[in-house]
Parts: sequence; structure tokens; C-alpha cells
Amino acid sequence: MPTNDSAAGRLLLINGPNLNLLGSREPEIYGTATLADVEELVTARASQHGFEMRCVQSNHEGVLLDAIAAARDDCVGIIANPGAYSHTSVAMRDAFAAAELPLVEVHISNIHQREEFRRFSYVSAVASAVICGAGVQGYEFAVDRLARILLG
Amino acid sequence: MPTNDSAAGRLLLINGPNLNLLGSREPEIYGTATLADVEELVTARASQHGFEMRCVQSNHEGVLLDAIAAARDDCVGIIANPGAYSHTSVAMRDAFAAAELPLVEVHISNIHQREEFRRFSYVSAVASAVICGAGVQGYEFAVDRLARILLG
Amino acid sequence: MPTNDSAAGRLLLINGPNLNLLGSREPEIYGTATLADVEELVTARASQHGFEMRCVQSNHEGVLLDAIAAARDDCVGIIANPGAYSHTSVAMRDAFAAAELPLVEVHISNIHQREEFRRFSYVSAVASAVICGAGVQGYEFAVDRLARILLG
Amino acid sequence: MPTNDSAAGRLLLINGPNLNLLGSREPEIYGTATLADVEELVTARASQHGFEMRCVQSNHEGVLLDAIAAARDDCVGIIANPGAYSHTSVAMRDAFAAAELPLVEVHISNIHQREEFRRFSYVSAVASAVICGAGVQGYEFAVDRLARILLG
Amino acid sequence: MPTNDSAAGRLLLINGPNLNLLGSREPEIYGTATLADVEELVTARASQHGFEMRCVQSNHEGVLLDAIAAARDDCVGIIANPGAYSHTSVAMRDAFAAAELPLVEVHISNIHQREEFRRFSYVSAVASAVICGAGVQGYEFAVDRLARILLG
Amino acid sequence: MPTNDSAAGRLLLINGPNLNLLGSREPEIYGTATLADVEELVTARASQHGFEMRCVQSNHEGVLLDAIAAARDDCVGIIANPGAYSHTSVAMRDAFAAAELPLVEVHISNIHQREEFRRFSYVSAVASAVICGAGVQGYEFAVDRLARILLG
Amino acid sequence: MPTNDSAAGRLLLINGPNLNLLGSREPEIYGTATLADVEELVTARASQHGFEMRCVQSNHEGVLLDAIAAARDDCVGIIANPGAYSHTSVAMRDAFAAAELPLVEVHISNIHQREEFRRFSYVSAVASAVICGAGVQGYEFAVDRLARILLG
Amino acid sequence: MPTNDSAAGRLLLINGPNLNLLGSREPEIYGTATLADVEELVTARASQHGFEMRCVQSNHEGVLLDAIAAARDDCVGIIANPGAYSHTSVAMRDAFAAAELPLVEVHISNIHQREEFRRFSYVSAVASAVICGAGVQGYEFAVDRLARILLG
Amino acid sequence: MPTNDSAAGRLLLINGPNLNLLGSREPEIYGTATLADVEELVTARASQHGFEMRCVQSNHEGVLLDAIAAARDDCVGIIANPGAYSHTSVAMRDAFAAAELPLVEVHISNIHQREEFRRFSYVSAVASAVICGAGVQGYEFAVDRLARILLG
Amino acid sequence: MPTNDSAAGRLLLINGPNLNLLGSREPEIYGTATLADVEELVTARASQHGFEMRCVQSNHEGVLLDAIAAARDDCVGIIANPGAYSHTSVAMRDAFAAAELPLVEVHISNIHQREEFRRFSYVSAVASAVICGAGVQGYEFAVDRLARILLG
Amino acid sequence: MPTNDSAAGRLLLINGPNLNLLGSREPEIYGTATLADVEELVTARASQHGFEMRCVQSNHEGVLLDAIAAARDDCVGIIANPGAYSHTSVAMRDAFAAAELPLVEVHISNIHQREEFRRFSYVSAVASAVICGAGVQGYEFAVDRLARILLG
Amino acid sequence: MPTNDSAAGRLLLINGPNLNLLGSREPEIYGTATLADVEELVTARASQHGFEMRCVQSNHEGVLLDAIAAARDDCVGIIANPGAYSHTSVAMRDAFAAAELPLVEVHISNIHQREEFRRFSYVSAVASAVICGAGVQGYEFAVDRLARILLG
Repeated sequence: MPTNDSAAGRLLLINGPNLNLLGSREPEIYGTATLADVEELVTARASQHGFEMRCVQSNHEGVLLDAIAAARDDCVGIIANPGAYSHTSVAMRDAFAAAELPLVEVHISNIHQREEFRRFSYVSAVASAVICGAGVQGYEFAVDRLARILLG
Repeated sequence: MPTNDSAAGRLLLINGPNLNLLGSREPEIYGTATLADVEELVTARASQHGFEMRCVQSNHEGVLLDAIAAARDDCVGIIANPGAYSHTSVAMRDAFAAAELPLVEVHISNIHQREEFRRFSYVSAVASAVICGAGVQGYEFAVDRLARILLG
Repeated sequence: MPTNDSAAGRLLLINGPNLNLLGSREPEIYGTATLADVEELVTARASQHGFEMRCVQSNHEGVLLDAIAAARDDCVGIIANPGAYSHTSVAMRDAFAAAELPLVEVHISNIHQREEFRRFSYVSAVASAVICGAGVQGYEFAVDRLARILLG
Repeated sequence: MPTNDSAAGRLLLINGPNLNLLGSREPEIYGTATLADVEELVTARASQHGFEMRCVQSNHEGVLLDAIAAARDDCVGIIANPGAYSHTSVAMRDAFAAAELPLVEVHISNIHQREEFRRFSYVSAVASAVICGAGVQGYEFAVDRLARILLG
Repeated sequence: MPTNDSAAGRLLLINGPNLNLLGSREPEIYGTATLADVEELVTARASQHGFEMRCVQSNHEGVLLDAIAAARDDCVGIIANPGAYSHTSVAMRDAFAAAELPLVEVHISNIHQREEFRRFSYVSAVASAVICGAGVQGYEFAVDRLARILLG
Repeated sequence: MPTNDSAAGRLLLINGPNLNLLGSREPEIYGTATLADVEELVTARASQHGFEMRCVQSNHEGVLLDAIAAARDDCVGIIANPGAYSHTSVAMRDAFAAAELPLVEVHISNIHQREEFRRFSYVSAVASAVICGAGVQGYEFAVDRLARILLG
Repeated sequence: MPTNDSAAGRLLLINGPNLNLLGSREPEIYGTATLADVEELVTARASQHGFEMRCVQSNHEGVLLDAIAAARDDCVGIIANPGAYSHTSVAMRDAFAAAELPLVEVHISNIHQREEFRRFSYVSAVASAVICGAGVQGYEFAVDRLARILLG
Repeated sequence: MPTNDSAAGRLLLINGPNLNLLGSREPEIYGTATLADVEELVTARASQHGFEMRCVQSNHEGVLLDAIAAARDDCVGIIANPGAYSHTSVAMRDAFAAAELPLVEVHISNIHQREEFRRFSYVSAVASAVICGAGVQGYEFAVDRLARILLG
Repeated sequence: MPTNDSAAGRLLLINGPNLNLLGSREPEIYGTATLADVEELVTARASQHGFEMRCVQSNHEGVLLDAIAAARDDCVGIIANPGAYSHTSVAMRDAFAAAELPLVEVHISNIHQREEFRRFSYVSAVASAVICGAGVQGYEFAVDRLARILLG
Repeated sequence: MPTNDSAAGRLLLINGPNLNLLGSREPEIYGTATLADVEELVTARASQHGFEMRCVQSNHEGVLLDAIAAARDDCVGIIANPGAYSHTSVAMRDAFAAAELPLVEVHISNIHQREEFRRFSYVSAVASAVICGAGVQGYEFAVDRLARILLG
Repeated sequence: MPTNDSAAGRLLLINGPNLNLLGSREPEIYGTATLADVEELVTARASQHGFEMRCVQSNHEGVLLDAIAAARDDCVGIIANPGAYSHTSVAMRDAFAAAELPLVEVHISNIHQREEFRRFSYVSAVASAVICGAGVQGYEFAVDRLARILLG
Repeated sequence: MPTNDSAAGRLLLINGPNLNLLGSREPEIYGTATLADVEELVTARASQHGFEMRCVQSNHEGVLLDAIAAARDDCVGIIANPGAYSHTSVAMRDAFAAAELPLVEVHISNIHQREEFRRFSYVSAVASAVICGAGVQGYEFAVDRLARILLG
């Protein structure tokens, strides 16, 4: 059972490889909000529902896996934009499955309008919901969805 | 240019085949909300943003195509759950593309946890955003997304 | 629970697109019995088991979907020759699944001796039994099979 | 045997889903001629060969199937632009095959320069000739081809 | 020409590998009737049409092939449940084709609801009719179908 | 810029491998018109529009490539029946693309009714229009199409 | 319930086609131990755990199927090297599944270093464990594994 | 080293499933020569080169595998028409490979003009030569080829 | 009808690309006989049956196509080793089909033991017989086969 | 040459991503033994053969690659459960190949009973042996196998 | 804009997993030059063009991604041998694309002569040039190519 | 052994179909250098290493094959840009293999950024090195690579 100070518990926000470049990388695809903007946005939204956030971004798959494993002990839900690892990482999928927490997968761009290999995500089958193409607003929807699942 | 009485314009809500059965059909997958509930929910949410709704559900592909074509004249955005037609209808895709309106695709269940053929949607490539597995809440997200796109 | 006057309840007979042409269309493949002949044959056979029949043929997928949805309320089993929609319609499959009634799928010709794309039917996986190549006699077998399932 | 007043008999012109939008839908792909323009053009050309035209456009697959079935009784040839149904409808293919009339398939745009799924048409294998990418002039070629086949 | 004492001639019943286990093997899939029950059932039904039966079950592909070859000389039709050999044996297909007798293929379970590799049967393309998922009643349908084909 | 005596400029007619056998080769597929007939037919039709023709047939891919390259300098459009090279020659595709002239691809037979490998043409994606199954009349349509494109 | 004299019950050892050639056939792949050596080795190891062995090798698929079926009555576990039948025999898979006994699949060579078609085994999905590339020692591991499963 | 009375040693002739039906089975494909004719023909031809023949035909894969294994001890070459087992039997391939004798594969009909699945033979990759479509004369060529390989 | 001086008529021998290198090119695969040796061998064998030979080798696909087309007029059969063109040339296939002469396809090496792409030959489906892996002796078999076909 | 104090040398034990969760993660699949239990078990078994162990678990692919590279200098064999990286990491395969040490691949669960993508392991082709589905006992088998390979 | 002391700016050299083993790992494939040799070679060549080098090798994908992201700020071009990550890492591709710097991809060995999965590189589509099989000389070519692109 | 006047021997430069159009054909892809420029550039570079050049460009596959065959006698290495034939010509691959000379394959554009079918080259597997996307500079690299291979 997670134990923390916030009323509703803690959520983990995972942002995968290259998402540290948000705002400067191909803004016509990913928009101009930076990673800091996204984390601030999510924290604010989570706070409205009584959630605390832990925000992790890394280009290191292992760091992400460690963070997901740790969430089993002190988080109640996960929001994840696994970035490019969505399409190639069975390890991410397994980590999410092992966490046994409600998971919402988010992609900023609409992956169905891009290269064929971006249409498949290993993670989607172990997620509760998948939101793509809603820009950074998708992260807000993810918070709202977890709130509905966890708080009713 | 669409002209109607609501401040923000009219949105079209498309629900495809068998969605008239919502609430009674396999509730462990689709939940207990009925189609009427969904349409009411969407209308309420839209109203908060100043949108008026036109709600169309049909098992007839042609009826849906006609409705989409008509939306070109008097709507400013589309929310669509094409149901089973997502996976088989090029005609739906073409109709949405021809409408040249922002489109958010919604699936109540997470199609990535079901049969392989449900993972592909012809519509996704012409949608702005795709939301699946968020239950009927996904429709609310769709309204919010269109509001962001259309109203900033 | 279905309620109707016949002792054993009502069965729905679905015949899909182009089956209105039975008897005149490519008789070397489909034989010379007309749709009326088939419906009469099935009704007679059903009557022997105490079943009443509702016979629906349409080229309109939506009409068929509506009929299947309606069967949930007042039928106890379904016999369906979905014709060409077998190979392309996820919506038909979903409608049959949602009906939650025993279903026997019938094809007049042996679809395994024809084009490759006719060998796959979306419907078969949600049917109880599948009979093909037995000509119009296949419909009789379907009635008998439903009788065995429903009446023991 | 077809019987009608025109010297050479009647031809059926089938235009499939979304072709009612001709002229306004993506004109850089489909040109600026409207459906009415096309039907007028075809009728004029047909008249030069002594043919009468019956023009049917519908977004409803069932309406199109009914029209093709009816043509067996009073038409001598078919010109069809099945639109998106080309790529997905076995029922259309079966209806054309059952009609046992010479068929010319027309696509306004060159389907080989577009998405992969548009390169395959179920209809082509039961057509006599296939013309694509010739714009609305392709319909004129179709009339001329039927004239050559039917009138020598 | 077949010569035997029964009025309508002799039918061959082929049951393939593992069907000797019927009744005890996975009864939730295959039911509780034993192979002896099936053979008795088929013999009784055949007798009603004036047919004599020869019943062969073997786990040995060669034994089955020999029996099919022998049927050319003294049988008038074949009912076959090739079991697992349906999916892998070109030799069975060739033997049936060489026999040049009407063949009805039977599967007790609905092979379309099981593993993907069970959906394809080499035999189906050389069978007259294919019945699956009708339990042991499917054998009765097969007898009736051969009676219709052979006796009119 | 092409310079030649005819009012409308010169068209190149390319006929690929084995088309020298027209008239004698499998006439049930290709008809009885010879290559000379085709070239005469095309020249006559072109002349009606004010075009001069250059007619090239060769079994040598290199000869065809050379002719296409040369057309860049003194032709205004190309009609091509690449025959078997349609299905295998990237070099032909590249030559046509490099020519940067309007191209109409013609196939005498309906390639969609033949072997699977004949349904794909490397050339189609760089052609303006594709006509197949219209017999030698297809060449006339090609001339008319180029006239429309080039002369309006 | 199996009844035999050994304390722990009887195990069945299945060796498939061509394994009678062990020791002489391609020893660089399969080593120099003969089939007799293998059976002796397994019997000795089994004896240490209190198991009795029944050893069956055959090139006849039917003989193997019969032996597996028989094991249902008087064995408590199976060790199987199905050899080439691993890759082609659905019947073997079905027989093992029907036996409802713990099964360990053994391959002497590492099938993942050989032809592509050797990487797939129909049997693996119904086995408890799969050991390949451990030479004849793999059989010893199989005995030990069954001992752990059956005896704890 | 093989030891037998004939000067050049003994050859094994393998004929696979259904080849016992030669002469009566589909003679338009396989000709009118019987299996006895073939064996006599081969024996005569072999005798001209000083070879003795051992002729084996069986519908039982195991019998064929046993015969091939036995050939290692007393034959110098193999002629094989594996029939339908060519396309499905890895065990046959392994047996031929283990035999380490020159092998000529023969098919009476041209397998490249038939169903797609007949174009692949597991055996071909371990054969020295493959002859198909030469009718029973193909067996004579096989004898001649082995004579050239073995006797120079 | 072919007319030439030899009693039995003339045969065409086609050797495709790179076969001019025979004897020096990879002799471990192709042996040490040169193209001249092969042509001499074939001519001698043909002469025994009363055939005259025309021998053509070219690296130019067009030269080969021309030669095949010409054979229609003055040859009675064709022996062809299309070399690498076997795997890529639809034009060769068409030329052989158009020639309407009995054709035997020869490959010196066993193409089934080499790269995957060498296992498919476009030509095989229009050949009467296919012989591969018999070295240059395969050409002799081809002559003998044509003699049997043409002279009985 | 490796140099260390243990008589038989040192073995490397690699456990890949998420295996730190052993015992708590999905115990119905992976059992209740923890990673510490596994490492203790392996060390004890290795010690019986005179081997010293180095145990490495990491979620970081790079850490695993570094450890494998280091093993070239001071280990004599490797036991690896690459976890999810089995299915996606060419880098792991390359590292094992570069190590040039005997490798036994272990999977706790039977990967052939799970998702299709788990049936393929890049590592298997460079392993000496592969053991799956034997639970943590599989690690013991791996030690025993390396002992046999290294110590005879 | 990059700012550094060298006249032409700084280049980043990326060497991926296992390339630290260069010189000792499979020298028959990768040669005997060590990673230090390669970095020295590249630095020397770069210096001739006035470039400064930053050399990064890591087995950690995250380290590589970080280095590429950092290059956006202070490098003018990238030379990368992504090693095994070429074939599996969408994240690498995305990082290179986001860097928006000219990229030359280098592989020491000719990846087209190895396993099938090595023929595809996710990186190639975002590289400017790709050089493989030129040994360590390929790195020199890469420097020269960047010099041409950047310095003209 | 090649004998010619230049110190280092002669190199063959092969340029395939449509490369005669260099400089004018799609310059945004292929640049503005003409074929003459390329041949001059290569000759100059070769001369620096003491090589003489023979430059061959042709649209005729046969001419190219002849030139490659001839190179066996008097050249020491080959540089080839096979153009479109890369993707379709097994004959080119075979010719290069038969030449047994070091071969460097060059593509001016980066074939990995274009149509899918351009990513595969039959030639690459028999080349020593492959360079693509380096523009005409790629030819210079090829000369340098051959110099390194041939001269050390």
C-alpha cells in the first residue's frame, strides 16, 4: 500500500528518450512547451485531484525501468510517454505490467500519421488508456483519467 | 463557414455500429452508460465550452457518411467513435478527410488489448487525436480537445 | 427472456448481400433454389421443432445489424448466411457477439474452393457452428443444430 | 433481355461513397467537376452511341447493391466508380459478377500514387476494363469502351 | 463401381489422430461421446438412408491413406474428421482427391475459435461440404448430406 | 522544349517485350490486331489532335530506356505499354520519371484477372493515367488523354 | 491414477523420427551417444528419483501417438524429443495436450542455430519446460525437472 | 561400405504416399503407367549400369524413414519421389541427410504448375538433383544421374 | 509448322546471362565444362534423335526474347537455362508461353541449395519439365525428354 | 586465459531487466524465489563443481554489456537470463558472441506459452544451450551444463 | 550556432555498443584496429580539415542519446557507427533527427553479407550518407564527406 | 593476372541505367555533375593511385554484364553504380560474383530515404563495400577504398 502525504497518493510521470528536448525539437510536431512546462502542468492538474507527482525523464532505459519498479512501493498510478521506447522495448512493457498500477499512455503527436513503425506500441496492451495527438493536453487528460479510476 | 446560434459553433458526434447497444452489450468491456447517457454527457460538456451538439448514431455506414458530409456546411469539429467501421471502412476515412474539420477519434475500450484486427483504424491517420480505453470519459476529453484546438 | 407464441421460441434467419438473387445468380455455384424457397424450407424445418421464424434478407449492412440487435429481445437463436459481409464486416461479428444467442453460420457454396479471401470469415469465431458447401440443405442442418442446443 | 426505348439500350452509372462531394472535396486530387457535371457528361456521351443512362450515386452500399441487382433486368452495361468501396467491398464485387454485364471500372485519380491500400480493388477482377487517373474524362472512355463491346 | 449388399452402397467414415480419445480428452471441447458412440450414431443414421458403414480410426497417417485408397473400389462416399492431419497433411488431401468420391469434412469443435493454425485445412478444398462446431451431430449432418448428393 | 513540325508536337509510343507478337500470341487474351495495326491506329488518332508519333517496340530494355531518355528532347508526351517490364523494371520507372513528360500507361488485357504478379506495375506510380483491359482501344484513349492534358 | 511398482511412478520417454540413428548420424551435431546410451542414461537417472521408465522410439508418428495416449493410463510424466515432428506435427501437440501429464521437451542440438524452420515447435506450447542444445545431458535435466514437479 | 552382388551396388527407390495409385489416379496429371511399371522401368535401367534395385512404396512415413535409414548400410544411392511428403516432412529431409548418399528427387508432374504449396519441397535442399514434370521418364534420368555420380 | 532439313526438326537451346563464363566461373558450383562443351554435347545428343540444334547464349535479355520469338517459326522444342533471368524476368516467361512449344528448363546447379531468391523461377510454370542439379548432364536429359514428347 | 582462485574458474551470471522483481512480480508466472535466492542457489551449485560466481543483475542494457565484455578477461562461462532484452537486443547477442565463452540461456517461464514476440530470442543463436520453463531449477541445469562443457 | 576554437567547428564521433572491443573482437570481421586507433585516425583526418573532434563510445544507449542531444549546442556534424543499436533503436534515430546536423553513418563490416536483421538500420533514413564495409577507412570517408558538406 | 601499362592496374567503372542523364535528371536528388564529370573525376583520382580506368555506362543490362565478364581478364577492381538494376538484377549480382574482383558499390543518393524497394540491392551482398548518399564524392571514396585493398 502506498503511503505518502498527499490525500490521493502519488502518481509517477514517466517521459522517455529525447523528451528532454521538448520545445526545441521539431516544434511543428511536438509543440513549443518544454519538459519543465509539461511537468509543471501535470503537477498542477494532479494537485487539483489531491495527487502528488514524481516526475522522471531519462534517455536511459534502465533509469526508467528502475523508476517504474520503485513506483510499486509508493505510487498509485502511472502516466507514461515512453517515446521511442514504446515501439521497441519489451522491458518497458514488462516493467509496467509488473507494477500492477493503472497506467495511461500518452503521445504528444498522433503516431498514426507518421512512419509505419510508430503505429505499434508494446506498452499499449498493458495500459488502461492510450491518448495520442492531443499535444501536451494529453497529459492533463491522463491525470483526469487516473483520478476517475482511482477516486471514482 | 459554419453559422449557428451557439457561441462556439456546432460539433458533430458520430457513434458507429452497435453503439446503440451501449450499456447492455458486454458491460465488462463497454461499461454501463447507455448511448443516451453518452450523448447527454457530451452535450453538457460541449455546452460548457459554448458548443452546440449534433448527435448521430447509426448502424448504416451510408447514414454516417451522409452526416459527415453534411457537417462540412454547419459544424466546426467532429468527435467520432466509428466502432467496428474503424477497422474496415476506407469510406469513413475519406469522408472525414473530405470534411476538413478537426476530428477526435474515441474508443471506449482499449483496442490494443483485444483481437489483432482491432489495433488498426483507417480513421486514425486522418484524425487529429485518438483516445482509447478511457471509457465514456474519453468523449469528454474529445470535447475538451476540440475546444482547445478551436477556441485556443 | 424471449416471449413469443411458438413453443420453442423464435429464430432469426439472416441472409446477407446478393442472396436476394439466389436461384438466378450463378446457379452452378449457388443452385436453383430461390430466397423464397430457402425461407420456406427453413420455416418448415423450424416448425417441426416448435420454432417460429423471422426471416431477414438485406443488401444493407445497417438493416442486418439492426435486425440482429433486435433479436436480443425476442429470439432464442440465429441462423446466418452473412454472404460477402462474412469476409469484411467486423460490425456483423460484433453484432452477433453482442446478441449473446447461439449462432449457426451457413454458406451455400464451399468457400474453401474459391478465392483466397473467401476462406476467412470474421463471423466464424463468434459462431457456435459453421456449415459450408451443403447447399440449401445447410440451412436445415442449422435449424437442427439450434434445436439440439436449445431444446437438448 | 433488357428492353427500353433507346436504340442501344440502357447503361447504369454507379458512383460510390463521397462522390457526391465531387468538385468541392480535395479538388487538387479530384478536380472541380461536380457529380452533376459527371452525370451530364456521361449522359451526353452515351447518347452519341444511342445509349440511355441511369445514374446512381449513394453513400449506402446497400443502395448500390440494389441498383446493380436491378440492372440485370433492364441494362446492357455498367460504368462504375466504386470509390472507397473498391478496396473493401466483396459484396460489390459479387453484385457486379452476378449482374453478368460488361463492366468498366473508373477512378478519377491515379490510385497507384496514393496510399498502399488504394492500389487493390476487389472489383477489378470482375471488370472488363479499368481506367484510373484520367479525371472525369475516364468516364467518357468507359462509355466508348462499352459502345465498342456492345455495338462492335 | 462399388458392390455391396446395402441398397445405397457403403460409406467410409475416417476419424484421424487422437480421436480414439473422444469422450475422455478435453470433454469441455470435444464432449463426452466416445468414438464407439460416434461410430454407432453414424451407422444408425446411415442405415436409415440404406447405407452400410465402414468405420476407420487410426493415429497412423498411412493406415488412413490406405483406407481412403481402398474406398475407391467399394465405397460411394466419405465422411472424414481428419483431426490434426487436416492442418498438416497434403497426403490426406491427395488421397481424398484421388478417391474421386463425394466427401464431407467434419470437425467436432469450431476450429475458428482456437489457435490460428487450426483455421486452415488442406482437406477443405477437396471436400464437398465442411461442417464444424456442431459436435457429434455434425457426423449426422454429413450422412444426410451424402444421402442428398448420392440419392437425390 | 520540343521542336518538330506537327502542330501539337510529337508523342512517343513505347511497346515493350513480346508485343511484336501481337495478333499471333494468345489472341484470346490479346486480340488479333498486330503491332503494325496498333501503331497505325495510334498514329491516325494522334494526327486528329495534331500530334506526330514516334513508335518504338523492342524486346531490349536498354533500347526502350534510350528511347525514353531521347524523348526528353523532342517529345511532349508518352504512351507506354511496358508489357512484362511493368512488373519487374525499376529502370523503366526511373526513365519515365526522369523524362518529366505526361505518361499514360496502357495494358491490352485486364492485368487484374491474371497471375498475382501482374497486378503490380512499377510504372503506374509515375504515370498520369493507367488504362487496362480496353484492348487496343486503350491506346486511343491514351492519345485522347494526352491531348486533353497537353492541349486542354 | 497410474499404478506401478516403482515408488514414484513411471515416466514415458519419447524419441521421434531418425533418433534411432543417434551416434552415427551427423555426430558433429548430435554427438556420439547412441539411442541405447540415451535410454540407459535416462533410466539410471530416473531410478535415482524412484521412477521407472518406458522408452519408445519410432519413426512412425502413429506409434508415437499411440504411446502417448497409452501413457494417460499408467505414467506420471513424459520426456519427449519429438525430433523433426516437433516442427510439423499438430497431432503430436494434441496427443501431449490430451495426455494431461507434465511434459519436458528435449532437443539434443540447439535448434536456434540451424534452419529457420527448426526454430518453431508445435509441442513447446504444451510442454512445461523446453531444453535444447544440452546434448544428451538435456535428457538428465528433463528427468530432474519432472522429479521436482512430481515429487517436490 | 555397401556390399552386394551387383557390380555397381544397390540403389534404393522410394515412392511416397498415394503413388500406389499410379495409373488410375488422375491420369491426366500422372499418366497411365502403374507403380509396377515404374519399378520395372527403373530396375531395367539400373541393370544397364550394373545396379541392383530395392523398391519401396508406402503410405506410411515411418516405413519410408526406416527404409532410408536401412539404406545407409547396403545401398550406394537413392532415387526418391516423396510425393506429398515432399512438402510437409522435415523427417524425410532429415532421414535423407542422415543417409549421406547421393539422392535424386523425382516428381512425375511439374509441381510448379499446381497449387502454391506444392512448389516447396523440404527434400530438395538435401538432394543432389531434382527432376520434375518429365513423367516416368524422370526416374530413368535419375538412374542415369546416379550412374554418372557413382561410376563417373 | 517448322520446316528444316533434319528429320525430327530443329530445337532451340537458350543459355542465359553469365553462362558464357561456364567452366571458369565458380567451377565448384558449375563444373569445368565450357559453354562450347555444352553446345557440342547437346548437338550430339540431339543428332542421335534426328534433331538439328540452334544454340543461343546472350547476356542481353532482348536477344534471348528475340530468339525465342523466332523459334515459333522454325523450331519444334526449346531447352532453356535462363540463368539469373529465371528469377526476375516475366518477359522470358511470356516469351516462352507465346512460343507454344514444349520447353524443358535446365539449371546446372541445384538452385534449392542456394540463396532463397534462387528457388523461384518465373519460367517453371510455363515449362513442361524442370531439371536442376544434374550438371551439364541435365541438358542431355532435356534433349531426351523433348524427343519423348515430340517423337513418342 | 582466466585467472582466479577457484579451481574451475569463474562463471558470470547475468540477469536482465525486471528480474530484480523476482518473487514479487507475477508469482504465478515467475514463482516466489527472489533474485537473492537465485544467486545463492547458483553460487551453491557452482561451488559443487569448483566454480566461483560473479552475479550481475541490471535494468541497464549498458551495464549488462559492460559485464559481458569484462567476462572475456576473467570468466570461463556465462549463464544468462536476458529477460525482455532477449527479444529486442542485438547488442546483447553481439556482446555474447564477442565474449567467445560457452553460454547457457535460461528463461524461468516457458516463453512458448506466452505472447508471440516472446518466442524469438536474438541470444539463442549464439548460446550453446537454451533452457526455458524449468523455473529457477533451470539455473542449476545451466551450471551443470557449463560444468560438463568446461570440465568434461 | 556552435562556438569553439577550431576553425571549422567540432564534430561528434559516436561509436555504439561493443565497439570498445574493436581489435580483439572477431578480427576477421572487424579488423585489428582498436577503438583508440579509430579515434586517433578520425581526429587526425578531422584536423586536416580544421575540425576538432569529440569522441564518445558507450554501451549505454542513454549515454549516446545524451551526447547526441548535447551536440546540438556545440557541434557542426556527426559521424556515427551505432553498432547493434542501428537495427533496434528508434530512440537513436529520433535523437539524430532532433540534432538537425549532417550525419554520416559508418559500419566497419559490410552489413549486407551478414544476418538478415543487420541489413536494416533505423538510422539510415535520417543520415546524409551511409558507408559500410570499408573497414576503419570508412570513418575517414565520413570526415571527408562532412568536410565537403560543411566547408564546400 | 591483369596486364596493362598503368603501375597499379586497371579499374572498371560501371554506371547503370539512366545514369547517362546525370546532371539534368532530378538534380535535387542527383546533383548537377554530368556523367562525363563523374568519369573525369574518377579517372583523375584513380590516376593518383596509379590506376588506369575503363568507364562503361549503358542502359543495356547485357552490355553491362559483358563488360563485367571482360574485366576478369584485364582489370583488378570494380566500382559500380548499378542504378535501378541494383534492386532487380540477379544477373548483375552473378556477374560481379563471377568476376572475383574487389567491388565497391556506389549510390549517389541515399537510397534509404526513398521508396522501400530501393533499400534492397542484390549487389550489396557480393560487394566489398557499399557507399550511398555521398553524391559524386562517393566515387572518389570507392577509388580510395580499392587502392587500400589492392595496394595496402
